[in-house]
Amino acid sequence: MSTVKYLLSEEQIPRTWYNIQADLPEPAPPVLHPGTGQPIGPADLAPLFPMELIKQEVSQEREIEIPDEVREVYRQWRPTPMFRARRLEKALDTPARIYYKYEGSSPVGSHKTNTSVAQAYYNKQEGVTRITTETGAGQWGSAMAMACAFFNLECKVFMVKISYEQKPYRRGLIESFGGKIVASPSTETNAGRAILAEHPDSTGSLGIAISEAVEVAAQNEDTKYSLGSVLNHVLMHQTVIGLEAIEQFKQADDYPDIVLSSAGGGSNLAGIAFPFLGRKLRGEQDVKILAVEPAACPSLTKGKYTYDFGDTGHLTPLMKMHTLGSTFVPAGIHAGGLRYHGMGALVSHLAELGEIDAVAIDQLETFAAGVQFVRSEGILPAPESNHAVAGAIREALKCKEEGVSRAILFNLSGHGHFDVQAYLDYNAGKLEAYEYPEEEIAMALAGLPSMG
Amino acid sequence: MSTVKYLLSEEQIPRTWYNIQADLPEPAPPVLHPGTGQPIGPADLAPLFPMELIKQEVSQEREIEIPDEVREVYRQWRPTPMFRARRLEKALDTPARIYYKYEGSSPVGSHKTNTSVAQAYYNKQEGVTRITTETGAGQWGSAMAMACAFFNLECKVFMVKISYEQKPYRRGLIESFGGKIVASPSTETNAGRAILAEHPDSTGSLGIAISEAVEVAAQNEDTKYSLGSVLNHVLMHQTVIGLEAIEQFKQADDYPDIVLSSAGGGSNLAGIAFPFLGRKLRGEQDVKILAVEPAACPSLTKGKYTYDFGDTGHLTPLMKMHTLGSTFVPAGIHAGGLRYHGMGALVSHLAELGEIDAVAIDQLETFAAGVQFVRSEGILPAPESNHAVAGAIREALKCKEEGVSRAILFNLSGHGHFDVQAYLDYNAGKLEAYEYPEEEIAMALAGLPSMG
Repeated sequence: MSTVKYLLSEEQIPRTWYNIQADLPEPAPPVLHPGTGQPIGPADLAPLFPMELIKQEVSQEREIEIPDEVREVYRQWRPTPMFRARRLEKALDTPARIYYKYEGSSPVGSHKTNTSVAQAYYNKQEGVTRITTETGAGQWGSAMAMACAFFNLECKVFMVKISYEQKPYRRGLIESFGGKIVASPSTETNAGRAILAEHPDSTGSLGIAISEAVEVAAQNEDTKYSLGSVLNHVLMHQTVIGLEAIEQFKQADDYPDIVLSSAGGGSNLAGIAFPFLGRKLRGEQDVKILAVEPAACPSLTKGKYTYDFGDTGHLTPLMKMHTLGSTFVPAGIHAGGLRYHGMGALVSHLAELGEIDAVAIDQLETFAAGVQFVRSEGILPAPESNHAVAGAIREALKCKEEGVSRAILFNLSGHGHFDVQAYLDYNAGKLEAYEYPEEEIAMALAGLPSMG
Repeated sequence: MSTVKYLLSEEQIPRTWYNIQADLPEPAPPVLHPGTGQPIGPADLAPLFPMELIKQEVSQEREIEIPDEVREVYRQWRPTPMFRARRLEKALDTPARIYYKYEGSSPVGSHKTNTSVAQAYYNKQEGVTRITTETGAGQWGSAMAMACAFFNLECKVFMVKISYEQKPYRRGLIESFGGKIVASPSTETNAGRAILAEHPDSTGSLGIAISEAVEVAAQNEDTKYSLGSVLNHVLMHQTVIGLEAIEQFKQADDYPDIVLSSAGGGSNLAGIAFPFLGRKLRGEQDVKILAVEPAACPSLTKGKYTYDFGDTGHLTPLMKMHTLGSTFVPAGIHAGGLRYHGMGALVSHLAELGEIDAVAIDQLETFAAGVQFVRSEGILPAPESNHAVAGAIREALKCKEEGVSRAILFNLSGHGHFDVQAYLDYNAGKLEAYEYPEEEIAMALAGLPSMG
């Protein structure tokens, strides 16, 4: 069975990120100050982010130049390969043409380095010496720790407690990079102590870890905060994935009918899909975009589109997004990177406009998909990426039922080398399905702020 | 700091493997039958290996064609990149030019797939339905399990017990591929039961696991045995690494003064070094070759060059090699792939001829090197590969002392994503140095067979 791989030259690493804000049919709702209910300005964000990233957050320019220093680091693993999954197609006996972009080829094994390097660079440029951040499964934390090692910045990572315990390997990697890591909720912050006072056994969540990291950055002059998804500039940094894929489809002499990815905060999906969606919005070529989220944390499919906080401790501004309620703590699924109550504002806005569809899949189906994938393609997907694999398999089987051949592109955002415990549990029949937690979500939604 | 990466096109994947037997100044000593003391013939090996691999084992042809079906699978990850380690050079403040070939980019994260795919292919061609093999840290076992999944063969892996316990993640990967895995020594074979009778707490070794895998293959018509290193054909399959590196050095307009790699059974070293050494042997260009082995298992630096068995249970033919004694059980270092009592016959022969130098480095120095590497280059090396990194750092510091700039090439044979426990232990100060175990080796050597 022939390997079909699409490679680009180094010169084809994108020189600009794609900013979908330039092509929106209507602008996304503004971010609001929780005290005043008014749109926030750059000064409100300055304690947390370097000014260049704040500018990117609100920019309406279609193309934003990637600094040479960032492209130089990208060159270690970019352009990433795109593959046609021929052996998987054969195993599914489908007429579908399945393509995947493989971001696990970065040094820490996920797409997260696309933005961590950029964020570290801008912080370094503006004299920051320490970065705080949160991490779920650890993909983001290790990506940020790597970028900080490269740019000689201190890195402090609040890691969601259940992942800290389930995934010691990611912790080992972060520590090897020289990053400091603590399980969240921790006793190091007011936000962490408040959660622990109420829930001493809290397994943590991304929402809680964000509160802790934000608090430390806000209180220290030399420290800024860095987020691995959700925000506009983070989603934009990931568009190198889709921009490369567009070029690779030219090589393939094909074009995707559907582009899909797993979705937690939205950066993975935005990275592969926004460049294709931009072409659709500009009337150049049609495409269907599909977000695949965990049944245990289904913000797009079951959440409410309203203003909510980005964190559980309510330290952030208010963003209009699909949310399960910022106090909702998702079940301990292995896809820790998808355990977030909300969806990035741009993805939410585009879903509301009908430009992005979504589906929720339970953990067992995603691992079954991952095992089928590794046996066919050799690469063990991250639990987060298994959602994309499962979505792609569903779409491929639909093609088979309907007897049509569609081109399906998904983002294999990372490998699962640090998540093998999940596979050991799955192979031993010990994994839970975790269906939609209706009551908990209803309770969290009832506590939402009223504005918006 | 600029990334310097040397890439080849897919058309530059080698079409032939390089067989150094064609260029030896004198032929390597023959393999002997332990009963008769006479050289063995193909019929003696036929119960264990497909005939095509037996032919390759003794071939004197310089170039052996890589089947199209094998090249097609190689194309998923080959050609692998070669990098200039600029950030590491800067951290060491050395005038040396450090290059590394990165084989961790294969789906299972090591060079081992270069031969596992070839071996699975030839077995499949000759009607074999099941393959048995051994594995230390699990790199080889997962490479073979992947190849068996691709070629639809059953795969049974005897995994050295200490690694089975230390490295459950590799086991999870092998199982995800559908491979069957058992801790060795096991109760499934006579060889395993004999060891357990004498040493119920045996941590196992590659030598013991080989005995078990060989026994099962010898007793079952439909089953053949596959080895991940040591044998001539295995070393030859790895030469794609060095053949590509030669082309990449043309891009760099440079040539290595020294080529080095970690050495357990020798396939990693042979893979990167034999093509360069062949050029030296043919009088084309000089080069220094250096094997780096663990101080706990120093076959080249402390072993005896004599005939010995390839396994602890004495089921294999006798090979003339540098050996610590086939009953020697190395300490439980994390570099499980280097815990082998002997060195591949071709590497041993070339060391005896003065063409390969060797150095032994203790575990702590290798992990210090690995941590320095990941902080500079972003890639976490496998514990085995840390030996090469440590050797390269020593050579680079020598350049600094001497004030000369030499080009150093090493093989980063795999990543350490499945070995993070070792880094967690190292970072926590819990790792042992494991120096040369003089007495144990003297005892094992005293029990060697007398011939040769």
